[in-house]
Amino acid sequence: MTSDNQIRRHVFFVSDSTGITVETLGNALLSQFEHAKFLTTTIPFVTNSARAEEVVACIDATARDEHERPVVFSTLADSGLRETLARCNALVLDIFQAFIGTLEQELHVGSTHALGRFHAVTDKASYEDRIGAVDFALNHDDGAGTRTYDDADIILIGVSRSGKTPTCVYLAMQFGIRTANYPLMDEVLSCTTLPSILIENRPRLFGLTINPERLRTIRSERRPGTSYASPSRCRTEVREAEALFERHRIPCLDTSAASIEEIASHVLLRTGLRRKAY
Amino acid sequence: MTSDNQIRRHVFFVSDSTGITVETLGNALLSQFEHAKFLTTTIPFVTNSARAEEVVACIDATARDEHERPVVFSTLADSGLRETLARCNALVLDIFQAFIGTLEQELHVGSTHALGRFHAVTDKASYEDRIGAVDFALNHDDGAGTRTYDDADIILIGVSRSGKTPTCVYLAMQFGIRTANYPLMDEVLSCTTLPSILIENRPRLFGLTINPERLRTIRSERRPGTSYASPSRCRTEVREAEALFERHRIPCLDTSAASIEEIASHVLLRTGLRRKAY
Repeated sequence: MTSDNQIRRHVFFVSDSTGITVETLGNALLSQFEHAKFLTTTIPFVTNSARAEEVVACIDATARDEHERPVVFSTLADSGLRETLARCNALVLDIFQAFIGTLEQELHVGSTHALGRFHAVTDKASYEDRIGAVDFALNHDDGAGTRTYDDADIILIGVSRSGKTPTCVYLAMQFGIRTANYPLMDEVLSCTTLPSILIENRPRLFGLTINPERLRTIRSERRPGTSYASPSRCRTEVREAEALFERHRIPCLDTSAASIEEIASHVLLRTGLRRKAY
Repeated sequence: MTSDNQIRRHVFFVSDSTGITVETLGNALLSQFEHAKFLTTTIPFVTNSARAEEVVACIDATARDEHERPVVFSTLADSGLRETLARCNALVLDIFQAFIGTLEQELHVGSTHALGRFHAVTDKASYEDRIGAVDFALNHDDGAGTRTYDDADIILIGVSRSGKTPTCVYLAMQFGIRTANYPLMDEVLSCTTLPSILIENRPRLFGLTINPERLRTIRSERRPGTSYASPSRCRTEVREAEALFERHRIPCLDTSAASIEEIASHVLLRTGLRRKAY
């Protein structure tokens, strides 16, 4: 399948912590080279020189086997570990090295050069917020837990499979925001008034909508051949949900072509909610 | 509370996409300056020059009000937008600019300079994997859904509040891994044999343990003054759970001082599971 002149390169993400930051950034950069094929390996928790030497040996072996040097993205706060890694046969792009000096100059202060600080539990309150928000999302999924809607920062509403659950979980995990979600079932859609639980929480409602054809595809993967996945039912539900959003002036977002991250970021931007966790 | 000579600086995260990549990297770098206080603002979806000009005006206003230039971390793939942003009165650190040229040279090819590619739904299969994994985590939380344990990549076990649920959700959302979790309640802990559902899935079990004092703190926040949160019960449960892991040779991890990201990354590393989604 791979044509001979297609770019194909091994990429290593090396970190003194979880590797999540460097993976995220590295993948963002690699996604700019759409015709290339990258084989990625993440090596987390590189916190001492013995482990750094192992990583160098592994990268060098790959370079020998592939007859081409790999690309290495790294986040190593310790300059000794960075020097060890720099000896490998690869293009090494260290993110700390690229920016930390400039930041130190700007702030007129040295950095701590502490390992793996970002994903460590450095801020207890912020961390508890995240855990609490994840629990909240799970306990308030799909119309559950309406008695504690008072504690919700936002309540997502929409038809089945419009993206409510993953968005709730993402808002909780990434931003510490307490999100409930409530499904717009037939009995809600066919009524001109909202259920009382939604009326009481009107200012915190946010609607998700979706292209009926995209909805049909998603539903068909789960329950092929059912009326739930039929084109007419998908069209009707979406039309009624959108009419409901308009009638009650509930802000809404089309999730058809959006990723979970994009939906969550748009919800934050539109509602003005502030993130509670980092 | 803030001493007069403490560093205090406004920081902007500017992105043509969700801003999640640049926030993650920026926060990782800022966490290296532990005595500084940063006031952060994220500005996502900067995709045209009018919006870029607004951002410049906003940053310049902050610089004027604070009598100190802000720090700006940005991920703008379009060079025109980068040039606009570069005119603001701030230290601008653009992540694309820092690395993309070097990568183009290394790969002997130009990048697409497409906006917001990373968090867009570019790979449908990988995206469906994530959504499916999140659904799986929610449907297999806290001992639910044991009849479909066959589809699980991993099953986390541990006492109540040892970190199972957030780890499951994170493994699903970040890595697309299908994770179930099963609570070690009294009736399981007091038995020398494992429940049959765990025996059948023995190779996929992974234990989470926790320091009894940390467990007591967490439980006390939820149900203060109960026997559930008592020091003796926490000690007994943890001791019995650890004995169970040892007796059945189930790998286990101490979550006491670890963040969700750290726990999830360690689980991946220890089990050798490969991530399925990016």
